[in-house]
Amino acid sequence: MTTTEILKSARAAWPALQAADTAAKDAALNAMADALLANQAEILSANAVDMASAKGRISEVMLDRLKLTEERIAGMAQGIREVAALADPVGAVIHRTERPNGLVIERTRVAMGVIAIIYESRPNVTSDAAALTIKAGSACVLRGGKEAFHSAQAIVKAMQAGLEAAGLPAALVQLVQDTTRQSASDLMTAVGLVDLLIPRGGAGLIRAVTENAKVPCIQTGTGICHVYVDAAADLDMALNIIDNAKTSRPSVCNAEEVLLVHEAVAEAFLPRLRQRLVDDRAARGLEPVELRLDEAAARIIPGTPAGEKDFDTEFLDYILAVKLVDGVDAAIAHIAAHSTGHSEAIVSRDAQALRQFERGVDSAAVYLNCSTRFTDGGEFGLGCEMGISTQKLHARGPMGLEELTSYKYVIRGDGQVR
Amino acid sequence: MTTTEILKSARAAWPALQAADTAAKDAALNAMADALLANQAEILSANAVDMASAKGRISEVMLDRLKLTEERIAGMAQGIREVAALADPVGAVIHRTERPNGLVIERTRVAMGVIAIIYESRPNVTSDAAALTIKAGSACVLRGGKEAFHSAQAIVKAMQAGLEAAGLPAALVQLVQDTTRQSASDLMTAVGLVDLLIPRGGAGLIRAVTENAKVPCIQTGTGICHVYVDAAADLDMALNIIDNAKTSRPSVCNAEEVLLVHEAVAEAFLPRLRQRLVDDRAARGLEPVELRLDEAAARIIPGTPAGEKDFDTEFLDYILAVKLVDGVDAAIAHIAAHSTGHSEAIVSRDAQALRQFERGVDSAAVYLNCSTRFTDGGEFGLGCEMGISTQKLHARGPMGLEELTSYKYVIRGDGQVR
Repeated sequence: MTTTEILKSARAAWPALQAADTAAKDAALNAMADALLANQAEILSANAVDMASAKGRISEVMLDRLKLTEERIAGMAQGIREVAALADPVGAVIHRTERPNGLVIERTRVAMGVIAIIYESRPNVTSDAAALTIKAGSACVLRGGKEAFHSAQAIVKAMQAGLEAAGLPAALVQLVQDTTRQSASDLMTAVGLVDLLIPRGGAGLIRAVTENAKVPCIQTGTGICHVYVDAAADLDMALNIIDNAKTSRPSVCNAEEVLLVHEAVAEAFLPRLRQRLVDDRAARGLEPVELRLDEAAARIIPGTPAGEKDFDTEFLDYILAVKLVDGVDAAIAHIAAHSTGHSEAIVSRDAQALRQFERGVDSAAVYLNCSTRFTDGGEFGLGCEMGISTQKLHARGPMGLEELTSYKYVIRGDGQVR
Repeated sequence: MTTTEILKSARAAWPALQAADTAAKDAALNAMADALLANQAEILSANAVDMASAKGRISEVMLDRLKLTEERIAGMAQGIREVAALADPVGAVIHRTERPNGLVIERTRVAMGVIAIIYESRPNVTSDAAALTIKAGSACVLRGGKEAFHSAQAIVKAMQAGLEAAGLPAALVQLVQDTTRQSASDLMTAVGLVDLLIPRGGAGLIRAVTENAKVPCIQTGTGICHVYVDAAADLDMALNIIDNAKTSRPSVCNAEEVLLVHEAVAEAFLPRLRQRLVDDRAARGLEPVELRLDEAAARIIPGTPAGEKDFDTEFLDYILAVKLVDGVDAAIAHIAAHSTGHSEAIVSRDAQALRQFERGVDSAAVYLNCSTRFTDGGEFGLGCEMGISTQKLHARGPMGLEELTSYKYVIRGDGQVR
């Protein structure tokens, strides 16, 4: 089937899902989880095909992300069951008002319709994304990366068997049958067939979506996250937060990329920073953090001189750009000019500085005295996550089930006219 | 200034508005209203220029919409004061959670940043849109139609004087200095400078936005609204609702364009419909409604045979397309295939049919036994309205102040790391 045919069949299947109540949706999700386990052998052999053709072409780290095992498939099935156990976002009355003319107006949460997701290699995204979409009441059209194509196909086939076993149409979860740029572009331009497009990937994919999409989109992902150490910071706390934000998992979007330090504490703080991120790590046999220093910071500690691009780069690596600023306003201004609007933190004991940073920083998540690494659906108590939105329309920050829904107004009357 | 320069200066001015509290914003709005009155003479003479050059080029109805009077300017000022009196949507904590690790996570309503609005002729939209945007905490960049350019310029100049009198930057409300397609296109593609673009206009403008916009948009407006008369309808109520939905103001987006009638009641209902909308109106000296009938309806009453496009046209006129269907499912399917997702009504006494229609119709507003004409911010109790969204992302139906805002997460900690 062409991408357009897939979208049309997903839309045609959607009313059956709309008509399903919470119990029916949850039963279907559990059947999808069962089917993943029942079709484990097929999924593993499809994954072996992907692994064989990827070997030598992608890094060992990426190969490891691509690889499926019995344990990982069990984890995927468990993930689907956890989504089934979440509260149903659809059908809730968000707001109710009775007007003087007797009309009762309810704003009710409803499903989107058809949600398309463009994502990259990891096979478990296939089942995670499908489960969240189905729970949110929408049909799901997936377009994965070429490395994981056979794995994704086997996973989708299993989930379709689960849907059918539960009495719902298989067309509610579908995989686009090619992984060319054209198929991504077809999804981006399918006006009237895609209610929401979620691109999950790197800066290149996000740029392509901004440039080409004609359907409603939520941009996810890239994070140039800042930590600002104020003049009134607890410096021990600042070191812990920066160490965590930079080194606990540098490859993720909520990791710190840029450190801003108030010049009043730079002399005291920067040598300790270098000790913690460079020397201590080296002594423990860990990869030291490369510090890329602006001129003022370079006068205090040794490090790599920062180039112009270093304050606009998502390193996703053991690299930290460091800049001195003369106060909260300068920190806010730097963030406004260089951030991707993901997550920023301040470390300070000054209530006025905290308030100023909280109000002035225009990012999805603003942290006061804690690590940027908490930007995550699970950590926020949403129970799950489809990605981190860095846009301001519809959803911002971690997107849970509610963020995958829309609403409509239902107006009950008894013959009222205007 | 070029459109890009205007957008950059609006963004540069925004922090001053962000820092303003509710009282400061309301004072600025009231100063804007005062300034409209104080600059009445300039506004009227600018409007006279527009009227002179429009005369003979646009219809009398459009000329009347363009014309300003002392009374209309007073109405615009009053409109701004009413917006000032509404509750401030910014700063409200929408959701608060305390996590087991002690983090307090607040989801807080915040301003968008820079909102751009593309609109057509009526000069009062200039002040309405600016007032709503300022109240919602965002800078406002307006791009009006060429017919009202001088009027809009004078109105914006007055509002800027009001902003400055209240101590806020004039750049918070600006008018794009040309009315060519290029300036609209510049707004649609100003990635990073426009946080939200709202096109207010006809189908052509909406198409151009869908085709070209690279910034986040909310589509407003076009309404192919349906009324479905069920087999179990109270036929007197149905006549009243249809008469109201079609004839009370045919030029607006919430007017009915298509009537679906259950075939079981068609023989009884259609002759009464014709009597009410055609004969009675003619007898009262009112313009009769032209009925465009599908084949089955044409076998029961006389009327114009419906062409293929008649079920996909926003007539905005005394024209009603009429089609017979064999039940609620067929009505829902027809609406799914032909509606613009604005407003649809069912007339029925059958609870099962009402429930089915309510769930199955995927439009912004679903009416049970009342007129589609209620889709309006004022009628819904929102106090105001920036337009009617027909998309599912972010805002659906009438957009009040809350729909012009975003949110962010503020996370308070005491050194927590992950």
